Amino acid sequence: MSHPQFSSSLLENAVNEFAKLPGIGRKTALRLVLHLLKKSEIEVEGFGNAVIDLRKQIQYCQVCHNISDTDVCHICSHPSRDRQTVCVVENIKDVMAIENTQQFRGLYHVLGGIISPMDGIGPSDLEIESLIQRITTDNISEVILALSTTMEGDTTNFFIFRKLAPFNIKTTTIARGIAIGDELEYADEITLGRSILNRVEFSNSFK
Amino acid sequence: MSHPQFSSSLLENAVNEFAKLPGIGRKTALRLVLHLLKKSEIEVEGFGNAVIDLRKQIQYCQVCHNISDTDVCHICSHPSRDRQTVCVVENIKDVMAIENTQQFRGLYHVLGGIISPMDGIGPSDLEIESLIQRITTDNISEVILALSTTMEGDTTNFFIFRKLAPFNIKTTTIARGIAIGDELEYADEITLGRSILNRVEFSNSFK
Repeated sequence: MSHPQFSSSLLENAVNEFAKLPGIGRKTALRLVLHLLKKSEIEVEGFGNAVIDLRKQIQYCQVCHNISDTDVCHICSHPSRDRQTVCVVENIKDVMAIENTQQFRGLYHVLGGIISPMDGIGPSDLEIESLIQRITTDNISEVILALSTTMEGDTTNFFIFRKLAPFNIKTTTIARGIAIGDELEYADEITLGRSILNRVEFSNSFK
Repeated sequence: MSHPQFSSSLLENAVNEFAKLPGIGRKTALRLVLHLLKKSEIEVEGFGNAVIDLRKQIQYCQVCHNISDTDVCHICSHPSRDRQTVCVVENIKDVMAIENTQQFRGLYHVLGGIISPMDGIGPSDLEIESLIQRITTDNISEVILALSTTMEGDTTNFFIFRKLAPFNIKTTTIARGIAIGDELEYADEITLGRSILNRVEFSNSFK
């Protein structure tokens, strides 16, 4: 390109870096960079170093593999959590989503993904062996599978379910159904069908 | 908040920094940070340092006040640009937009904003004095005002127009009208009205 779009290579470099982020186009990248340019040097250093420090110093909990500042995360080391129930999730966003409900007092196990042959992700790329290890060493009575209801999620669920079979452990999966507040006519057929098959006693539905 | 949303303060800090950016909510911020976490340390350093270096080393062209890596930007120092025509714009994004058209071979003058009493921006906050200085010292024959057609843009246009009056210099403004490809029925009345008043000879419309 003989006609330079940017008047400064520093500017161009910063815009290119932002444009690499998912969902950020070049126009948005430029807008974000020009926003940062208006901030003080200290503020911009705070921004840049927050990301660099996170990447350099990041640790994962040795027990559940969630992101943690310590060897064992605050959930796994919490004295009042139910250590017999382990909820298996795909990633740390799922841990945060479940924690926000304040309905679960057990521990987690973060797989770090789901089995996806299309993306070249097999069982050995995930924290499945370490889950089995926890089952054998810790006194766990129930494993809750909370993966997404996609083909990959179902495959992973079934793989883990089979791995757990020899241990004679209670294995459950989170309830699927019509979301609270949703109207039936807009629900997809599969969800609606499953929610009829998996209907619960009315008196239990308020629990 | 006794119930920590984030399992790591490093993670929380990085998400908070991203969420300060305009148009980036906390969910998007988390998604961007987790994306960066998957990258190598070198890539993440490249990202963070690109922003820090830009802010620390940024320079503005002494002539036109555009962002530049050198004292005088590549447009102002370009030997084949028309040094007698100066296009006055609000910010560097406007310079890039006009440069991308490849229709303008003159120089620019970046005001750094427009007069906006609501935001506390007066003429002295903008590069207007330095524009007058250029008029008096350089051999400029035409000033093109290319500000936005808002009340603030019109105010700024008029302020500069009056400042330029004593110099007996040609002052023009960019053409306003129906965008090429737009249908008349969807154009707003003011634009359509102006485009009729400022109609051009048909033979000139192909230039």
